[in-house]
Amino acid sequence: MKELKIPLIKDGTVIDHITEGNAVKVLHILGIPKTTNVVSVAMNVKSKFGKKDIVKVENRELDPSEVDKIALIAPKATINIIRDYEVAEKHRVNLPDEIRGIVCCSNPTCVSNSKEPVKSRFKVISKDPLRIKCYYCEREPEDISERII
Amino acid sequence: MKELKIPLIKDGTVIDHITEGNAVKVLHILGIPKTTNVVSVAMNVKSKFGKKDIVKVENRELDPSEVDKIALIAPKATINIIRDYEVAEKHRVNLPDEIRGIVCCSNPTCVSNSKEPVKSRFKVISKDPLRIKCYYCEREPEDISERII
Repeated sequence: MKELKIPLIKDGTVIDHITEGNAVKVLHILGIPKTTNVVSVAMNVKSKFGKKDIVKVENRELDPSEVDKIALIAPKATINIIRDYEVAEKHRVNLPDEIRGIVCCSNPTCVSNSKEPVKSRFKVISKDPLRIKCYYCEREPEDISERII
Repeated sequence: MKELKIPLIKDGTVIDHITEGNAVKVLHILGIPKTTNVVSVAMNVKSKFGKKDIVKVENRELDPSEVDKIALIAPKATINIIRDYEVAEKHRVNLPDEIRGIVCCSNPTCVSNSKEPVKSRFKVISKDPLRIKCYYCEREPEDISERII
């Protein structure tokens, strides 16, 4: 017996093609481990293009702000919405040209870090490798994944 | 097709009966995501005693200090060592009466946090719920899992 049968998920979301090693960051974006949903994760598994991570969450469909955050750390990820055991929707994450309200500027004196009601705003200056620049103070954060709000 | 066949691991470790929601903390103890080993995780799955998490790591056997740290956050965990697809060893984690060098004291002025060559040392004063007390300053850390070194 060299195989194990596991039930497919009936309803939920499969996030595939996550950059290897980034599954734990995806879990944090999804607010896991605070969830009670069944979650399964595979890390460093072989794929056509090297290695990848996969995250499956039962009984949950992601909201757009979660998908936007995942795009920042796993730009090649695909989101598969499962309904009644079938892939009902499949789409790639998409890096927009501008990122608002989901990354915190690394400049402590930036207006987006002040008490003013100003949401953070970044221009995407390169998608691969990902580089973003603050719209207000022009600072480029180094480790973007550490600065996701 | 409501099942998925996944290959069993040939060699490695299965950490079962992890307290639900604590799989991510176990991953951090194991230095994942910095590993390149294949890792799979199931969270909030049903078990005889409610819900649990499971972590499987291929091609790796845990060292004793890792097992001691896991005991702190998942006192009911079992460690299964897999060799050639078979469970070669199975043992429960064990909370010792004294914990040395793996938890950082929450008292910033404790001698174990000074520049002196003094390793942290705690007495286990209750196993369920887990309560530990610093041998040097008698401080009881509140969130032990946040203080694992």
